[in-house]
Amino acid sequence: MPETKLTKNAAGRSVPMEINGKPVVPYEGVGKHIAAGVKHSPKIYSCKDFPSDGNKRVGTLKEALKKAGLKDGMTVSTHHHFRNGDMLANQLFDIAKEMGVKDLRWFPSASFPCHEHLIQYLEDGTIHHIEGSMNGALGRFASQGKMKGVGVLRSHGGRYQAVQDGEVKIDIAVIGAACADPFGNANGLYGDSATGLLGFALADSQYADKVIVVTDNMVTFPCVPWQIQGNYVDYTVEVNKLGDPEKIISGTTRITKSPDRLLLAEITAKFCDETGIIHDGFSFQSGAGGTSLAVGEFFKKIMQKKGIKARFARGGSNKYLVSMLEEGLIDYILDGQTFDMEGIRSMAENPGHVRTSPFTSYNYHGKGNFAGMVDVAILGATEVDVNFNANVVTHSDGYLLHGIGGWQNCLFSKTVILPIPLFRDRIPVVVDEVTTLCGPGELIDVIVTERGIAVNPLRTDLLEKLKGSDLPVKSINELKDEAEKICGKPEKAHFDDQIIAVVKWVDGTVLDVVRKVR
Amino acid sequence: MPETKLTKNAAGRSVPMEINGKPVVPYEGVGKHIAAGVKHSPKIYSCKDFPSDGNKRVGTLKEALKKAGLKDGMTVSTHHHFRNGDMLANQLFDIAKEMGVKDLRWFPSASFPCHEHLIQYLEDGTIHHIEGSMNGALGRFASQGKMKGVGVLRSHGGRYQAVQDGEVKIDIAVIGAACADPFGNANGLYGDSATGLLGFALADSQYADKVIVVTDNMVTFPCVPWQIQGNYVDYTVEVNKLGDPEKIISGTTRITKSPDRLLLAEITAKFCDETGIIHDGFSFQSGAGGTSLAVGEFFKKIMQKKGIKARFARGGSNKYLVSMLEEGLIDYILDGQTFDMEGIRSMAENPGHVRTSPFTSYNYHGKGNFAGMVDVAILGATEVDVNFNANVVTHSDGYLLHGIGGWQNCLFSKTVILPIPLFRDRIPVVVDEVTTLCGPGELIDVIVTERGIAVNPLRTDLLEKLKGSDLPVKSINELKDEAEKICGKPEKAHFDDQIIAVVKWVDGTVLDVVRKVR
Repeated sequence: MPETKLTKNAAGRSVPMEINGKPVVPYEGVGKHIAAGVKHSPKIYSCKDFPSDGNKRVGTLKEALKKAGLKDGMTVSTHHHFRNGDMLANQLFDIAKEMGVKDLRWFPSASFPCHEHLIQYLEDGTIHHIEGSMNGALGRFASQGKMKGVGVLRSHGGRYQAVQDGEVKIDIAVIGAACADPFGNANGLYGDSATGLLGFALADSQYADKVIVVTDNMVTFPCVPWQIQGNYVDYTVEVNKLGDPEKIISGTTRITKSPDRLLLAEITAKFCDETGIIHDGFSFQSGAGGTSLAVGEFFKKIMQKKGIKARFARGGSNKYLVSMLEEGLIDYILDGQTFDMEGIRSMAENPGHVRTSPFTSYNYHGKGNFAGMVDVAILGATEVDVNFNANVVTHSDGYLLHGIGGWQNCLFSKTVILPIPLFRDRIPVVVDEVTTLCGPGELIDVIVTERGIAVNPLRTDLLEKLKGSDLPVKSINELKDEAEKICGKPEKAHFDDQIIAVVKWVDGTVLDVVRKVR
Repeated sequence: MPETKLTKNAAGRSVPMEINGKPVVPYEGVGKHIAAGVKHSPKIYSCKDFPSDGNKRVGTLKEALKKAGLKDGMTVSTHHHFRNGDMLANQLFDIAKEMGVKDLRWFPSASFPCHEHLIQYLEDGTIHHIEGSMNGALGRFASQGKMKGVGVLRSHGGRYQAVQDGEVKIDIAVIGAACADPFGNANGLYGDSATGLLGFALADSQYADKVIVVTDNMVTFPCVPWQIQGNYVDYTVEVNKLGDPEKIISGTTRITKSPDRLLLAEITAKFCDETGIIHDGFSFQSGAGGTSLAVGEFFKKIMQKKGIKARFARGGSNKYLVSMLEEGLIDYILDGQTFDMEGIRSMAENPGHVRTSPFTSYNYHGKGNFAGMVDVAILGATEVDVNFNANVVTHSDGYLLHGIGGWQNCLFSKTVILPIPLFRDRIPVVVDEVTTLCGPGELIDVIVTERGIAVNPLRTDLLEKLKGSDLPVKSINELKDEAEKICGKPEKAHFDDQIIAVVKWVDGTVLDVVRKVR
């Protein structure tokens, strides 16, 4: 990357004024950036230019891409509903390679290890760079400074915001759907590649110039429900197989069996109980990781004991949440991502299992969103520092190995709790300063570790409620010292100057950078 | 209205180049107008400017209107889900009057006789003019040349198109909903003022500058399903009563008992049977009028006899359609407007009873819409002429008494049939030239009267299929002559020069004008 001017943003991080040749705004603080201007305006289309009988089928994905005018330098988007079982993104870039197209910007809602196949295209110039999470091999590749452009990491809500605001103009969106009709109405509920919902593709369908829906289960119009509306779709394609069902279902949705993690979960639930967060009609969001799932199970026990229920649970759904819905412990699941077959079944059957999208749940540039209405969000982190700042994208060795997901967006919940081990593989998780800043400390309320709970001093209300509690409340510095006493002072990651990716904040400003690992 | 330059459009009608001071495009022919430019861009909002807990309630509608900045010359929209039982629009303008606001443009999705109350505000300058159907008294008022501005009549799809394309910029949308939460999620399904769905307010929610949701049934978040998304909403208001349930339910949804109308319905169904339009998996749309409902019942009998079913029925739902859905004669009702309690119940309970919107069904400036996928649309008309052109807004005396509704949009169905009496009150319905042109003859395929069927000569395929049929096929001129033989040559309406309203085509061009009745 050519030299770029750096500036210190409101979090004290040095960030560029320009990314991939385009000016950007440095982070200004939580709720400080003033959104200006108008949303991106898609072209006005006319029915006269579309088949009057609604049949938009073309023979192959290649044909659709040609009709959509795929050419050098375009931005092409895909979505991670198929997770590590996705077969579409790889096919898409195989075709681009075949067509000799160069310098594409790949704008996935997330990438997975199965996309390691695409490293060859990052190397040969078919893909210029990736804007979206780079999990595993792709992240390592980028961290080694091998990607031509700079990666841009956004939260799910930030991705919607970027598309809505015209920050990222998508030329061609390729939307894989378990079920679709020839008009382009599509859902993720029915078929061999069922994924539940298609919310991550919503922005793309609304704002992309050309939209292609690809399915391995084409049904007669109307495909109901239309999670993606055919009125936004240009072409539909039927293929044999979109995804590997075994790998679509995430491997992470199993409750942890680790005694340490179970302890974290139990303390977290106890904390929520003692502080009154768990009350009749409350709401919660917890991730699909083993510890988060365990927190949910402890919540369940507390709720059953108290005879109360939650108004709603937000987040990715799984069999544990579904059982709570079916037992009447939750009125609604407001689902953003279905993690297992039980989630998919429930969403198809149960009107109380409601699909959401990054627009409803997370978009910061809307007239509010759902995140702020959630009483408590239970999230993870790779590192937390003494100012409660947290990192979710890099490891302490500096490698970029994870995406942001909905994590940043969930920080706007009324209480944010990070149950994390004090150290992992003898490397402290609570540190002086996070390697990469993903979440400003002022939004993170509680750190729960196996050796104590630290409450953000800003939350005097929580501290007040804990008076007299036998929960092991400590200061964050005490936790850090304890970690260092056991593991020693952690070595800082070694970086070159080269910026390989930036982390955007929910409002589109630049929060931090990720540099090449030395 | 000041003098305005007129031009002959592609239908041979003299239309102005400018309406209410803004330039307009004359009708260019079906599928001829090239849509250019980009969709209207709403402002980018930020969550930081909205309550973090999602509670957007304000005490009264007046307070909400003040917060929304209601002022002279603004465009304010309402919706006709409550039909003739609406209490909201009248309240809204009572408040505007109280606030001393002048020259408002009222942009309803339709107006009803209950809005006669607003004539005083058209007279005193609170409302400058109405863009939307003017049924009954308001239409008569306009036809007498008393409205300050020129009315603009649009189809349901044309209304969506106008908002989407930025032709009509809505300053404040006031959306009445039978059920809503404090965040602004809303539906029409539950509560004393249940109306079914809220599709007519969709465009307004997406594109208006400020959006107010008013409900008489405020529920705890989340209001599910969210037919209107709270993420578009600025303020929510709870009131005692939104509508008169007795009058919300349309009085028109009863099958005709008139032997003449039943005959029309029977011939229409027979025509559809003989021409193969009724086949397994076909689709149909018929209105909520007595004759249309009767057509549906005849369809039902034919389908039962043949042991076939329809893939979907489009249009307003009612108990007759619901019974067909529940008996398995229709896979899906794609509902645009719920006409009775059975429709509301079915929509709330049955996943096969699907809500649609003018965007999915009718918007001509999308990537296709549902209208073209419908095998047969059964519609009405006040007049049809020998070129198959039809009128739905004025009577032969020239008075503007009806709106366009979805009528123009349905003309894009594969076959359009108008079952109409040859004359009404001894005034011919089939005439030399329609008083007001609402639908170009090339899109109207069949006229069914009690004295014969006329098939548009463009539809050689239908004529071919009727060979050997004992259905009374005649030419349209024969029908006209027969009408004149019985009733005499009808007198033309007498008009002044003053243009009191224009009729837009589905693409936003000006199809015809309505003049002041002399």
